[in-house]
Amino acid sequence: MNKNKRAPADKENSMVRDNQNLNMRAVIEPSSIVVIGASRNPSKVGYAVLKNLITSGFNGWLYAVNPNADNILGVRCYKSIKELPQKVDCAIIAVPAENVNEIIEECGRKGVRGAIVISGGFKEVGEVKRELELTKICRKYGIAMIGPNCLGIVNRKKHVDSIFLPTYKMKRPQLGKISFVTQSGAVGSTILDLIGESNIGVSKFISYGNAAVIDESDLLRYLREDADTSVVVMYIEGVKDGRKFYRELKETCAVKPVVVLKAGKGALAAGAAKSHTGALAGDYKIFQAMLKQAGAVEATNLPELFNLSKIFLQPLPKGDRMFVLTNGGGDGVLAVDAIERNGLKLAQLSGKMRAKLRRILPKHVVVGNPFDLTGDADSTRYRTVLEEAVKEEGIDAIIAITLFQTAGLGSEVVNEIISADIKTDKTIVSVATGGEYTRLLLSIIESSGIPAYGSPSEAVDSIAKALWYYKKRGVGRGTVQSAGDGSV
Amino acid sequence: MNKNKRAPADKENSMVRDNQNLNMRAVIEPSSIVVIGASRNPSKVGYAVLKNLITSGFNGWLYAVNPNADNILGVRCYKSIKELPQKVDCAIIAVPAENVNEIIEECGRKGVRGAIVISGGFKEVGEVKRELELTKICRKYGIAMIGPNCLGIVNRKKHVDSIFLPTYKMKRPQLGKISFVTQSGAVGSTILDLIGESNIGVSKFISYGNAAVIDESDLLRYLREDADTSVVVMYIEGVKDGRKFYRELKETCAVKPVVVLKAGKGALAAGAAKSHTGALAGDYKIFQAMLKQAGAVEATNLPELFNLSKIFLQPLPKGDRMFVLTNGGGDGVLAVDAIERNGLKLAQLSGKMRAKLRRILPKHVVVGNPFDLTGDADSTRYRTVLEEAVKEEGIDAIIAITLFQTAGLGSEVVNEIISADIKTDKTIVSVATGGEYTRLLLSIIESSGIPAYGSPSEAVDSIAKALWYYKKRGVGRGTVQSAGDGSV
Repeated sequence: MNKNKRAPADKENSMVRDNQNLNMRAVIEPSSIVVIGASRNPSKVGYAVLKNLITSGFNGWLYAVNPNADNILGVRCYKSIKELPQKVDCAIIAVPAENVNEIIEECGRKGVRGAIVISGGFKEVGEVKRELELTKICRKYGIAMIGPNCLGIVNRKKHVDSIFLPTYKMKRPQLGKISFVTQSGAVGSTILDLIGESNIGVSKFISYGNAAVIDESDLLRYLREDADTSVVVMYIEGVKDGRKFYRELKETCAVKPVVVLKAGKGALAAGAAKSHTGALAGDYKIFQAMLKQAGAVEATNLPELFNLSKIFLQPLPKGDRMFVLTNGGGDGVLAVDAIERNGLKLAQLSGKMRAKLRRILPKHVVVGNPFDLTGDADSTRYRTVLEEAVKEEGIDAIIAITLFQTAGLGSEVVNEIISADIKTDKTIVSVATGGEYTRLLLSIIESSGIPAYGSPSEAVDSIAKALWYYKKRGVGRGTVQSAGDGSV
Repeated sequence: MNKNKRAPADKENSMVRDNQNLNMRAVIEPSSIVVIGASRNPSKVGYAVLKNLITSGFNGWLYAVNPNADNILGVRCYKSIKELPQKVDCAIIAVPAENVNEIIEECGRKGVRGAIVISGGFKEVGEVKRELELTKICRKYGIAMIGPNCLGIVNRKKHVDSIFLPTYKMKRPQLGKISFVTQSGAVGSTILDLIGESNIGVSKFISYGNAAVIDESDLLRYLREDADTSVVVMYIEGVKDGRKFYRELKETCAVKPVVVLKAGKGALAAGAAKSHTGALAGDYKIFQAMLKQAGAVEATNLPELFNLSKIFLQPLPKGDRMFVLTNGGGDGVLAVDAIERNGLKLAQLSGKMRAKLRRILPKHVVVGNPFDLTGDADSTRYRTVLEEAVKEEGIDAIIAITLFQTAGLGSEVVNEIISADIKTDKTIVSVATGGEYTRLLLSIIESSGIPAYGSPSEAVDSIAKALWYYKKRGVGRGTVQSAGDGSV
């Protein structure tokens, strides 16, 4: 393993970067945790981490290490990791950078096999040697280490939350099926905050920072095999090992969707970080082609990353035949514009469906697609059409647009959309534009696994990318959910 | 004026469509209003309209017409418009379609010169003759009529609100400088709801429906001359008279920005509404070219329409040199990606600014652009850099990104951004991604006229379009605000 050979950090890493032998579950699904550098001072990271583990409801063994305290926030404190009464799965380390390596060595000796190093002060500030040393120690003991210079993880099922940002400033998400992998703690935490407010939920959130041991490819492999993850979403600035990444990405895309936002696309962005301009501009084109070939869905900006994460909570569309239901004509037109721009089609409704709805609905409602229920539509009118649409063979996806603002549309239309979703394995998305009242109703819809969008174009663009993924993966491989469930 | 000649409605309209002689202020800035079809029944439009006029604080003369009531909601009721004790500026009409024309005739005889016909049941349902008759009567008496089949108007300064959607479902915006013109009541009301929740404010909101008399071009002319409007935002499905529209649009764009979202772009969308497919797809290309030539800024979807509305609250950028300030490295990289994609540049900071900031700021903060204040930045650090940036000649626009989620950044950073904006006529925008806490702080920033965006890409895309408009209009024409203020 060349552990003692002097080499630049990247080279050293790439030589031993396979990491197949590491116990990823020790760090991502720990049953016992020790916080090293725990603090009584509420302004310290070591306090926030411990506090968030307690308030998030972690119910495994929890210890703290602080040489000057007996207990912090009711958690038993030890002077050093050597004194812990048992072996623990994961050490969360928040001490000054210069002490990290010594502590990791102690962890190794104590049999700890998972670690999250939150502390910064490594390669990102030029301390290449310190990071190299950290990597070596982890390799020596076989420690699956995430970091350094990261936010760490949120595992909602295990109630693990190592993020040191205050919960009043940043909401934590509910349990869900989406897992997020982010190189940037900053971008990652803002996304987590957004998801926290929505009801779409998260399985794992992993901020991996400098990737001195565990890198984005290892995380892909782990999440591919994770039965609780049905969609993987990644924010990446640079990949450590392109070949490894492509291999893991391709294998993962074959069983569950992976959405990737690549930042640092052009020469300017590269120049902002490093000094070799020009080179990376070309690199992005290659990266983009690589994503496509692997079957990953590319998001071009943050709002799109968020939009695409959600679409994969639905069964994949099996074809391009869209059905647009609305109580506002203008929104229907906007949806059709987006359908056309994406090369999708408007579903042709069968004569049977048309005849039946003509019989039931009021005269002024024109049966068609887009299906404009008109401004006086109530929930019953939505139900009537949705009940037929879910049965209609010629429809692949249903875009249910609701102007909640109209006087006649009660909030129970939310239940009609949710009921329709339960009855079908067609793709269903919800669209509504508006303020607080609208957002409240959309969040109810999202809590039942139906993605909600603030505009018709965002909904249709997302469906189009889901269809691309469906075709890329090959017809007949089932929905995302079943792929996820069957993998363990 | 060919008033008695039988002709298809559109032809009739185009012959008399100039409308220069009509009193637009009677309908948009009325000092006295009568609601015809006022109702005691809260589920009726005629109740909601009267209620919203009262609760919005309209302080002119307010009357109601209802043959079966003495007063409604405390407003004196008359049996017919003939009995009103005075001449009123504007009649808001919410009666069944078959009674509208008779009532408009009475209004004309009574000297009413402004009208809003909310009632549907005209050309949009095939009642072409009824609409033609309505147009004729309005022409006969010189009534500036908005509608039929519309939501009507909100004029925040005059406290006029004719919109019949309940305020608990749809917020009304504060007083601001943006005016909205929308063909679709549905789309318009959802945008109004969104703006109602933000702090950007609205001057006039006009939903003009079938445009039987007043059309989008007349509204452009009115808003061009309106000193309270500094930005015009339009949602258009189809233009009545292309030549007239181009003329008014071009003249308006020469003095204030106009943002246009055209819906019904392609063959499918056209086919959804009418049966002549194919033709309109070409029309859109022409429309798009026409917008560009006139100097209007095109929004391609609803979120962009919203984003672009806000950017014009700021002074126009005078050049392409962007300065990116952030406490999250990843967001800086995303901003640079967007800068590069839009063909903008990163500002080169002067040696003087660099040297000064190097002296003041902590060692670990690297002076550059993007300027990463790092995750431990507090408000003082933002102030230090912003104070230099507003004075720096080589900067045209400042993109202030804040991760409000970090433990060290207090909410007072909001004041630093607002203070910076007061000190400069450079373009300043604010960017923050996140949930409730973040949105709250952004709304404070927006209340002071600084547009706030949920992602770096949205901010940069908006600045790029503002710069396009600045160049199109010609250098040295001053900022939007001064253009607006100088026009009356």
